[in-house]
Amino acid sequence: MSRVVIVGAGFAGLWAARTLAAAGADATLVDRNNYHTFLPLLYQVAAAEVEPEHIAYPARGIFRRRRGIRFVMAEVRGADLDRRVLFTDGPALAYDHLLLAPGSVPRFHGIPGADAHCFQLKELEQGIELRNHILTCFERAAVTPEAKTRTRLLTFVIIGGGPTGVEYAGALAELVRGPLAKDFPDLDPGAARVVLLEATDGLLPGYPEKLGRYAARRLRRIGVEVRLGAAVTRVDPDGIELAGAPRLATETVVWSAGVRGHPLAGALGLPVTPDGRVEVLPTLQVPGRLEVFVAGDLCGWKGPDGRPLPLVAPAAVQQGRAAAANILRLARGETPVPFRYRDKGAMAVVGRGAAVVRIGRWAIAGLPAWLLWLFVHILYLVGFRNRLAVLLDWTQDYLFLDRAVRLILPRRPQAEKRSGGRRSGT
Amino acid sequence: MSRVVIVGAGFAGLWAARTLAAAGADATLVDRNNYHTFLPLLYQVAAAEVEPEHIAYPARGIFRRRRGIRFVMAEVRGADLDRRVLFTDGPALAYDHLLLAPGSVPRFHGIPGADAHCFQLKELEQGIELRNHILTCFERAAVTPEAKTRTRLLTFVIIGGGPTGVEYAGALAELVRGPLAKDFPDLDPGAARVVLLEATDGLLPGYPEKLGRYAARRLRRIGVEVRLGAAVTRVDPDGIELAGAPRLATETVVWSAGVRGHPLAGALGLPVTPDGRVEVLPTLQVPGRLEVFVAGDLCGWKGPDGRPLPLVAPAAVQQGRAAAANILRLARGETPVPFRYRDKGAMAVVGRGAAVVRIGRWAIAGLPAWLLWLFVHILYLVGFRNRLAVLLDWTQDYLFLDRAVRLILPRRPQAEKRSGGRRSGT
Repeated sequence: MSRVVIVGAGFAGLWAARTLAAAGADATLVDRNNYHTFLPLLYQVAAAEVEPEHIAYPARGIFRRRRGIRFVMAEVRGADLDRRVLFTDGPALAYDHLLLAPGSVPRFHGIPGADAHCFQLKELEQGIELRNHILTCFERAAVTPEAKTRTRLLTFVIIGGGPTGVEYAGALAELVRGPLAKDFPDLDPGAARVVLLEATDGLLPGYPEKLGRYAARRLRRIGVEVRLGAAVTRVDPDGIELAGAPRLATETVVWSAGVRGHPLAGALGLPVTPDGRVEVLPTLQVPGRLEVFVAGDLCGWKGPDGRPLPLVAPAAVQQGRAAAANILRLARGETPVPFRYRDKGAMAVVGRGAAVVRIGRWAIAGLPAWLLWLFVHILYLVGFRNRLAVLLDWTQDYLFLDRAVRLILPRRPQAEKRSGGRRSGT
Repeated sequence: MSRVVIVGAGFAGLWAARTLAAAGADATLVDRNNYHTFLPLLYQVAAAEVEPEHIAYPARGIFRRRRGIRFVMAEVRGADLDRRVLFTDGPALAYDHLLLAPGSVPRFHGIPGADAHCFQLKELEQGIELRNHILTCFERAAVTPEAKTRTRLLTFVIIGGGPTGVEYAGALAELVRGPLAKDFPDLDPGAARVVLLEATDGLLPGYPEKLGRYAARRLRRIGVEVRLGAAVTRVDPDGIELAGAPRLATETVVWSAGVRGHPLAGALGLPVTPDGRVEVLPTLQVPGRLEVFVAGDLCGWKGPDGRPLPLVAPAAVQQGRAAAANILRLARGETPVPFRYRDKGAMAVVGRGAAVVRIGRWAIAGLPAWLLWLFVHILYLVGFRNRLAVLLDWTQDYLFLDRAVRLILPRRPQAEKRSGGRRSGT
């Protein structure tokens, strides 16, 4: 049997491993975290809506009954593609077939300060960090005598009106107007601002236009300032600058305006597109490196219409499965087959009880779309227990209009952490 | 109405605030965390048994319907006791009456290296840190080719055979023999060692002797190496030294061998006992500073028999209530009354389905004691939702012999954290 190494326990890597395990094949799955993160709900962690533990599942737990899958917690450092060895900060891993599925990182389009001063929503720890930061802003605002500082602390800016920006703006607006308004009775309820900036002239680019208009209307109704055609020119620690508009004073800027392929591809010397995705053959193989496959956000596969895939979980799952199936074909001496994408549509939540859904030519908005969203997400959440726990979080949130998770934990910003590590002091 | 400031949202501070709120009085509660931690279950967080979020409750949530209680998230830096002002890293707080309830910190008895290299279990973040460390030891052991390193990584030492040490040793033994043995099928199940070191000749000092003997027997049955009369002489990063016994190679040493009063008391210049607790009048007032009260672990109150109180939650709750009641008396122009301690007994869990309980002269061990423990702890957990969530964790743990929370989160040890804070990079 061939030795298969999979890099990344995201949707693509996880489903590739499942496909291999189901066929009785062996594989080594490498990730720097010991868990899979259900990224579509990360924005809810950052809005104190679900607990971090509830959208993560230990990788070893997932494959406990699949003895063919070996998990290695390690960070990939490089590879010798000729000798077929992957280097990590732990063991070196020899492979016959390699599947790269490390995902994507933010793309800042060269905006000065964006990389250094924006919060991101690509990893579970970032979601926790953003949640802690927002709650800390409220705690600081509650004891600040200066109105100007208070305004800056309570202004929350989200750059990018795609699905993540729309979902987070809605969840954040409901957090600050609901539970936090109750927690901080001394603060003026109207003082907290959530501003969503989109560079183009409509939200949710790629969705039918009427869904973008619905999202803007709905977000405005729950108190989000939606600004279209807003071009950010600079981000600094206490505000952002915009083309043709006054400066916005804020300590909270969330970046959701585009991603690029994980830099691992470039580091390994693979051919990449301008947005950092690996150019692959229709079979998801790397040209000239037919033993290397790419799946998920890093994969530069283009459909028959020449357009790249949306960076969504269903696309990653399909590519992970297809790459694994092709690896199995190669191991059996068969010819790999081209990947075919089945578009299952797209969906985004716009606050409690409202969502937008596109399925084929259908466009649905409002409560029916939200119920569909709820159904699909509960269905896909990995692991029975997590499903139940998220339901509990949501029940509290939707029925009682309260949030379960308002802990600032860990308390200290990373920058202030002591260097001691183990010690606690006082 | 007098201005009351309470330092610490632990059991003493929280119940003091509740007592004041119930009487319609105002108070300001200061804590450096925005949540109350249910410390009696912290060892379960460190053993991946309950989620951190489930034993913590947002302070503002607790007092949402008590408008008289103001919460300030801040760290106390000092005070001007003559002018009656408390200084924090946030606002300065003027008071007429001050209640100090900051708790306790570990006491290392001058053992070299103990302070620098031991894990502690006094704060929620320390519980998470210890959980992450233990899971990381297993991940590292799984990819280590050297048997010697593997042995060191899989040896877990707990210093101190009091209730915390006994409870954590039991929970840890069940974690490593149960869920982790299943998660790491390639590791020899017998390779992981849990060693409990106690300096005296019996576990659970202060409990009836037969309960200490029961705990030792029971812990040994579930695989804990219980060593009595073990004197630790040195702790370093890769092991500990013992008087008259070979060195133990380990990267995990947990300190549960004694605490002392929080250093805040000394910093404020209050009179302290050798173990750092504040010497108080029978009314819990500081001699010569009758407007300053002390409650909880920091309070050096002694019973009629001249013995200090055990550092347990019920004692802190009683002192918090009594101090608040005396503050109310002073505000009404009445005379404060002496504190009277009602001993409600003590209990400790010794693994799944087994506990020891002392109530007055009764001593109970085994399953009945454990059921009593379960009942009391569910009853006391603050907040309906947390109670339910902990129950879910426990159900999974006890019925399915599995642990819910095996995430290494945050992933990086604090020492390795980047200084950037907000940035993620790759």
